[in-house]
Amino acid sequence: MNTSIRFAVVGGDLRQAKLAEMLAADGHSVSVFALDRADINSSVTQAANIHDAISGADCVVLPLPALSSADIINTPLSDVVLHLDDVLSLCSSEQLICGGRLEHPRICDYFVREELAVLNAAATAEGAIQLAMEAVPITMLGSKILVIGFGRIGKILSHRLRSLGADVTVSARKYADMSWIQVYGYHPVRTDSLLGNLRSYDMIFNTVPAKVLAREHLEGVAPSCLLMDLASKPGGMDFSAASQLGLKAIWALSLPGEVAPLTSGAFIRDTIYNILQERESSL
Amino acid sequence: MNTSIRFAVVGGDLRQAKLAEMLAADGHSVSVFALDRADINSSVTQAANIHDAISGADCVVLPLPALSSADIINTPLSDVVLHLDDVLSLCSSEQLICGGRLEHPRICDYFVREELAVLNAAATAEGAIQLAMEAVPITMLGSKILVIGFGRIGKILSHRLRSLGADVTVSARKYADMSWIQVYGYHPVRTDSLLGNLRSYDMIFNTVPAKVLAREHLEGVAPSCLLMDLASKPGGMDFSAASQLGLKAIWALSLPGEVAPLTSGAFIRDTIYNILQERESSL
Amino acid sequence: MNTSIRFAVVGGDLRQAKLAEMLAADGHSVSVFALDRADINSSVTQAANIHDAISGADCVVLPLPALSSADIINTPLSDVVLHLDDVLSLCSSEQLICGGRLEHPRICDYFVREELAVLNAAATAEGAIQLAMEAVPITMLGSKILVIGFGRIGKILSHRLRSLGADVTVSARKYADMSWIQVYGYHPVRTDSLLGNLRSYDMIFNTVPAKVLAREHLEGVAPSCLLMDLASKPGGMDFSAASQLGLKAIWALSLPGEVAPLTSGAFIRDTIYNILQERESSL
Amino acid sequence: MNTSIRFAVVGGDLRQAKLAEMLAADGHSVSVFALDRADINSSVTQAANIHDAISGADCVVLPLPALSSADIINTPLSDVVLHLDDVLSLCSSEQLICGGRLEHPRICDYFVREELAVLNAAATAEGAIQLAMEAVPITMLGSKILVIGFGRIGKILSHRLRSLGADVTVSARKYADMSWIQVYGYHPVRTDSLLGNLRSYDMIFNTVPAKVLAREHLEGVAPSCLLMDLASKPGGMDFSAASQLGLKAIWALSLPGEVAPLTSGAFIRDTIYNILQERESSL
Repeated sequence: MNTSIRFAVVGGDLRQAKLAEMLAADGHSVSVFALDRADINSSVTQAANIHDAISGADCVVLPLPALSSADIINTPLSDVVLHLDDVLSLCSSEQLICGGRLEHPRICDYFVREELAVLNAAATAEGAIQLAMEAVPITMLGSKILVIGFGRIGKILSHRLRSLGADVTVSARKYADMSWIQVYGYHPVRTDSLLGNLRSYDMIFNTVPAKVLAREHLEGVAPSCLLMDLASKPGGMDFSAASQLGLKAIWALSLPGEVAPLTSGAFIRDTIYNILQERESSL
Repeated sequence: MNTSIRFAVVGGDLRQAKLAEMLAADGHSVSVFALDRADINSSVTQAANIHDAISGADCVVLPLPALSSADIINTPLSDVVLHLDDVLSLCSSEQLICGGRLEHPRICDYFVREELAVLNAAATAEGAIQLAMEAVPITMLGSKILVIGFGRIGKILSHRLRSLGADVTVSARKYADMSWIQVYGYHPVRTDSLLGNLRSYDMIFNTVPAKVLAREHLEGVAPSCLLMDLASKPGGMDFSAASQLGLKAIWALSLPGEVAPLTSGAFIRDTIYNILQERESSL
Repeated sequence: MNTSIRFAVVGGDLRQAKLAEMLAADGHSVSVFALDRADINSSVTQAANIHDAISGADCVVLPLPALSSADIINTPLSDVVLHLDDVLSLCSSEQLICGGRLEHPRICDYFVREELAVLNAAATAEGAIQLAMEAVPITMLGSKILVIGFGRIGKILSHRLRSLGADVTVSARKYADMSWIQVYGYHPVRTDSLLGNLRSYDMIFNTVPAKVLAREHLEGVAPSCLLMDLASKPGGMDFSAASQLGLKAIWALSLPGEVAPLTSGAFIRDTIYNILQERESSL
Repeated sequence: MNTSIRFAVVGGDLRQAKLAEMLAADGHSVSVFALDRADINSSVTQAANIHDAISGADCVVLPLPALSSADIINTPLSDVVLHLDDVLSLCSSEQLICGGRLEHPRICDYFVREELAVLNAAATAEGAIQLAMEAVPITMLGSKILVIGFGRIGKILSHRLRSLGADVTVSARKYADMSWIQVYGYHPVRTDSLLGNLRSYDMIFNTVPAKVLAREHLEGVAPSCLLMDLASKPGGMDFSAASQLGLKAIWALSLPGEVAPLTSGAFIRDTIYNILQERESSL
């Protein structure tokens, strides 16, 4: 972005607050609203109301997720209640409106963009490693770890774990993924052959949003094994069975915003820049 | 493959010879034909003629590429001339016939399988590094290297170059690939912004099968820069311009079979096992 | 260790408890004392008193550190008070007595052994990464990190940070270390040139036990930078200046036992095995 | 080096030629002699005779190795015969004289400097990988490789081989080295336990200058295994036994200058700068 743009950042958590500051640091003019409890520096204008925030903006940025329920904008750092429809009614047709996890004809959902998904997967992988380090009495170095699934998170997580010195096995269903797993230096196994072969792992990370770790799988896991589910709802692990079996199981959701809000804000910024760039090129 | 299978390996180069030996080492019964000049160990049966080789086989394996021209089977290690049609006429409908780079209703083309393509990309990346090491008077350590394209070869090549200590920049067109490039620790650049920004590289590897390095690009390259094109025909580099400009340019094709015939044979074996496994499951 | 050995594990924290279990798992006969509050499995004999624990043992293992003060053995998991002299008076001259961080003519100090120091450095590096991940709102991926010193911890920490995707600079004093730093792919800088060049780092890890980060250095650090001192006392950072400047500074000591007691126990076990092996070879 | 220095580069191979050009590129005034057959660019002055080359120089750089025999300077790129004594008699006491592999009270031997040895080890490791890639029909990816010795070359070679996807075992004698090997993710074995355990390796690299691979070791090696000796004379492998056993064995000496003369020249330059810096600081 070479030219200065006027942004309105409305609602959201620490990521949006950081996003506002970073947009301003890049030379853009930024006003925020409904981020009252965030400590935002003075390069950003605190708008007195939603009307002031939005009027004059080239681009209105709603949070990730954009809505907390029905049509209420997600404003965890403010007591203000903002209805999506009311906000949209303040916007003109020239204004670009971006929001996360929100299908709406008027709004560009930045969360569905692949480049953000990849970056978020990297932050998720790192957050998972942090949580695992906190949870286990062993080092990653020398641990025997299984990663189930070789999608975005599986790819990056395996890469990071191996480079921390773990002995990494990755399960996948497709033969091509088995080749990739081999090429990157992990041990490949078929996801459908996991049953009965889980005893030796110190940690198991699931990334597949399907019940790959059922009760019969968990019964074969070592008592000291850490189980971490990184798959979005409905998850891939029978948590109630894990609990009955006395296994340590963590369902880690929304890691990027939690463990690295600043980096996550930067990821959103970059994605919004890409959206603006594409719009410009297509004009 | 738990059960013993009867294979006929017909024609081909060193890869097929190694393939035959490896199949036999796995406990299968293997006969070969038209591999006369290969030094194959005694675990493999040398068939007296094509009829003997094929009759009784469960699976007939043709080489990669299967044909050298029109309908003649590729037999660089033999003076025998085998017409594809003649060979096929010897096969019964129960026999599985596999061959590489050959579209034919009766033949399963193992070369189009993604898992083989990935493994071959890994061998190609390694071969490219070997050729580059031979060609330059500098170490990979500390070199400034550009990899154009982030497909299969680009992904593995960047990974290997970085781990040899090179400073790796990767160009791609899609924003999502830019994210992956960043996440793996390389410098991302847009392929459409390369023009005028090539001066600082010690080596440039192209993996994109489209003219990404035209004369005007090459005019901006340092005189000592090594150019290597890994893209299949028509390639991605103006070789005639490179030559006129006095640049060192290498078009490296078919690396896997050349630099690592044994490993390449193993890759073909694994792929054929996968094909057999799938057939079995689908019965 | 092929032959079964009788061990007495006396006092200590979770590491010694795990050590006792692992020795027993290796087929040795193990009795423990003064580990009352540890949950030790039944493969290990709980001795009724120190005399029972020690009598009949081939090797007596005291904790790390062996003493909590003067001549009192370190027993954080028990209310028993054990004087070193009393324990030693129970030991015969044939028994091998090992202890950590304890100079005594009768006791083999396993902590001074280089192989344990290296393994502990690896656990320290991992622990430091865990603490840093918890403390910062950014990912390691893409962070600009300075590691001061290229001794054991510096070497492993740089290696791990780089493989997590950080941009790693390492400072050292010796030219040879500068070469190593370059060869492993980090940016080398001279430790004596740090002053005035610290502004750009997101995190600074010190591993040098000498005042390398004085007030004037800290004044040049970015406000959001995380400072972590991994050097043993007296440390290498002016913590009071850091606090006055409002910088986030962590002095992380004794990480291995804290973040990875099980692995640390295994490290002690391996070292004791080495000691026994050497004794045997020298007989 | 902030100030411009006058260098005389006398004799040597391509490395010295490149060194001369790089010194000139850094802004220094450089004259060369006895490099007739090198193609050196015009930023460097070709001296008419040794007297012209040396007179006025602040620093005289002799090659690596400095002498080809007795007291004759090593001049492979020239027919000039230069006696060391004659050259020295032309030098004043203020001039710094540097040379490689030459013990002489008047000459600073840059080859003994640890920082150059480390950099050369990195170039050696890379050269060894290049030679191995050329010699074997398999990829490094997936190869089972043994590196004997964990000194400078062993450290870097293991690091590079592992990152190319090989399964790396490293042998050492000291327990501390075994810890380092484990910490970096290779399999540690004791050098004195190699006998009888070599069958499974695809490649064996020796870095230890002592007979570690005697006939009885080689008898246990797989017929297809590549043996490479990187140890300086007398080497560490029984080459005559290897030859009698029909094993492929390579003794790779002086790799840096051969496979990467340009980088090697840069390493010498950096080392000479360090020498000058130290002299300046010590004044």
